[in-house]
Amino acid sequence: MSQPRRSFCPIARTLDLIGDRWTLLIIRDMMFLGKQRFEEFLESPEGISTNILTNRLKLLDELGLVQKQPYSSHSRRMNYQLTDKGKSLRPVLKAIIAWGLGQIADTQIPQGQLPDTHDPDYRFQ
Amino acid sequence: MSQPRRSFCPIARTLDLIGDRWTLLIIRDMMFLGKQRFEEFLESPEGISTNILTNRLKLLDELGLVQKQPYSSHSRRMNYQLTDKGKSLRPVLKAIIAWGLGQIADTQIPQGQLPDTHDPDYRFQ
Repeated sequence: MSQPRRSFCPIARTLDLIGDRWTLLIIRDMMFLGKQRFEEFLESPEGISTNILTNRLKLLDELGLVQKQPYSSHSRRMNYQLTDKGKSLRPVLKAIIAWGLGQIADTQIPQGQLPDTHDPDYRFQ
Repeated sequence: MSQPRRSFCPIARTLDLIGDRWTLLIIRDMMFLGKQRFEEFLESPEGISTNILTNRLKLLDELGLVQKQPYSSHSRRMNYQLTDKGKSLRPVLKAIIAWGLGQIADTQIPQGQLPDTHDPDYRFQ
């Protein structure tokens, strides 16, 4: 999914790596909603498919944006967490949230449905 | 190209509308490099194809991010310029520029090749 380099422009390179319709939603789930498990990402309202989710988690791991570790010492299930490099996307996501809320008529943060642990940066601003 | 609404999340909605590998590069060309004409967008180093460019300019016009007008009263050629709504993407592009320059090893702003009219927000920061 990560695309060949089209130029040295930082905008083009960022889009080469994470400029698709799904990757930033997985990062949103980790950054703002505290999700860590494969099944939790599947439950998000956009309805990501298992094969796209598998592909993007592998890509994010390869890019060093996400690290995975076994859920417990007796489990083969994985936990996914943002690395510092992944967390550094926060200003990008905050700018997108502000733009979407301000410029797209039907957007909203689903306050009532958010977990108590959600990050306050994911809200009306 | 604009995709159906997947949820009410402002991140998801923004990606529905402009979350592809090309749209933000056309906006970059208008915002930071002063490009206005079809042929100018084709000359950018990423090598956008004429059919993708035609499609994205039509989409940007429909979304109200870009307005087109005849190049002159005697021409059928069009000029494309960002609307205020399009210009409001500046913080998103600035956040992406900063992230790309900071986190992707081989990115750079091609200072020597920029037109004298380029916007100083498109530079090392």
